[in-house]
Amino acid sequence: MKQYVFGIDVGGTSAKIGFFSADGNLLDKWEIPTGLDKGGEESLRDIADALCGHLSAKGLALDDLIGVGLAVPGPVLEDGSVCDFANLSWGNINVRDTLSSMLEGVHVAVGNDAAVAALGELWSGAGRGYRSIVMVTLGTGVGGGVVVDGKIVSGAHGAGGEIGHILVNPDETAVCGCGKKGCLEQYASATGLVRIMRHLLANEKDAALSSLNGKKPDAKMILDAAKEGDPLALSALNTMCRYLGRTLATVAQVTDPEVFVIGGGVSKAGTILLETIRKYYEPAAFFATKTTHLCLAQLGNDGGMYGAARMLL
Amino acid sequence: MKQYVFGIDVGGTSAKIGFFSADGNLLDKWEIPTGLDKGGEESLRDIADALCGHLSAKGLALDDLIGVGLAVPGPVLEDGSVCDFANLSWGNINVRDTLSSMLEGVHVAVGNDAAVAALGELWSGAGRGYRSIVMVTLGTGVGGGVVVDGKIVSGAHGAGGEIGHILVNPDETAVCGCGKKGCLEQYASATGLVRIMRHLLANEKDAALSSLNGKKPDAKMILDAAKEGDPLALSALNTMCRYLGRTLATVAQVTDPEVFVIGGGVSKAGTILLETIRKYYEPAAFFATKTTHLCLAQLGNDGGMYGAARMLL
Repeated sequence: MKQYVFGIDVGGTSAKIGFFSADGNLLDKWEIPTGLDKGGEESLRDIADALCGHLSAKGLALDDLIGVGLAVPGPVLEDGSVCDFANLSWGNINVRDTLSSMLEGVHVAVGNDAAVAALGELWSGAGRGYRSIVMVTLGTGVGGGVVVDGKIVSGAHGAGGEIGHILVNPDETAVCGCGKKGCLEQYASATGLVRIMRHLLANEKDAALSSLNGKKPDAKMILDAAKEGDPLALSALNTMCRYLGRTLATVAQVTDPEVFVIGGGVSKAGTILLETIRKYYEPAAFFATKTTHLCLAQLGNDGGMYGAARMLL
Repeated sequence: MKQYVFGIDVGGTSAKIGFFSADGNLLDKWEIPTGLDKGGEESLRDIADALCGHLSAKGLALDDLIGVGLAVPGPVLEDGSVCDFANLSWGNINVRDTLSSMLEGVHVAVGNDAAVAALGELWSGAGRGYRSIVMVTLGTGVGGGVVVDGKIVSGAHGAGGEIGHILVNPDETAVCGCGKKGCLEQYASATGLVRIMRHLLANEKDAALSSLNGKKPDAKMILDAAKEGDPLALSALNTMCRYLGRTLATVAQVTDPEVFVIGGGVSKAGTILLETIRKYYEPAAFFATKTTHLCLAQLGNDGGMYGAARMLL
């Protein structure tokens, strides 16, 4: 009887595998290494082997699976193919068909990791009870996921919800990972926050006001200093949240979600982050969307796994 | 037998009524006056009377209707209610239930006019063959409609697709009709283009370069002058399209549509408008969305009527 699902979140260093019952309970989870040197076929073979191994250890077979959901770090086309992930050497490959053929034709669904995490939060996290959410993942980069009426909006080119690459500063001179200049990701990611802070610390007079003077702070140090009232750290947080808050107000004018869910490592800063985003969101928002909910993600690093499983259920 | 649909586009001065067959042919169309002095109940009564009169003249009855679709100039909530249109004195009223009860319980669907026009273009105009489009209507204001997988995204507060009120210039000092400052509508509407041109003509040295020097040009005059190479009119067009092109690139990162459809009076400028929008769209767009189609609406003022009918079919 088909009563189990695997939800897998593929990242640059590891793939998180979750084994779920049909009613959505996470029964087991573990990680297997991925690696920049492995191609798409080899990586998918590793995953297929891990799934088969787990099933046989449980006395189960591929026939007991409803399917396998996969969250991957890049745009995914409707046919399940991907091309040139920034952080994996998978090349151009049809992930859905390749993995399915390694698993005797088991149903496979593939989605962009940030979008899939949004679906996970909608199902089992901060988005429970909602139908339409926008999730923003603030990590090394800025990911995004748009869900309308319970379905991921992946878009005509797999770029739905790629809000990290919205142009927010046409005057920027530094180049983003995507090749453009002035993307949201250059300010609202962990890396972006560090960059903003370094600029502020470069001014000696200003730097003297900060507890981080003379240090090379990472994002957590900056956010901790901001909580303690450090004026330069607060200024960096404000700059980050001005770009992010205004961008969310823009996104609200496109799909008008019920809630914005903020996840990723930077979101561990908690209340001060939400409050600073809202300070810039509200004046930029249209009257009808000024009160849209804004909250923190609840599934942490498991969101992608949950959402990947959800694609099958 | 239920085989007809009314599609109605309600505007500030008139309601355009279309009578459609179930297979989508427009059989008749006419207009009835609306008016700022009339309340919602009275206006809907006028519309109900017009529909009943048309049916009886054709020897038909309400029972022959599949339903009535209504496009209205403002946000519409999921239950069919609206509140405080900018250009009509309808107050807070449940348009769907009120009109339905006046028509012996006939099925009524209500949508925002710009979103409904997008659905019309998708069905019978420039969007034929596509499933996901974003339509922008450049008229006195800037309206927008987002369609994903063939369905209007109306949003949690009826503000889905209200892209005219995206903040594009935080430094603006003039106030938009919505109460904010720096909305897209302040630059990309007919009114906005005129305002930009007036600023340019206010500089005497620059004004001397323009054929419109000493005149009070409307949007059409400016667009015509731009086509003839007038440097100031071209500069105004560039400013307008810089804001619009960058905003479309932003919208592409949210729902990633197959096509952008540009409608409204300003779109009569044609190719020069599309080319100038694209000039600013491409550098601002993420690589995956740089080639998204951009085209002119085809249904003109009938788009709302078609889309309103489409909501029932």
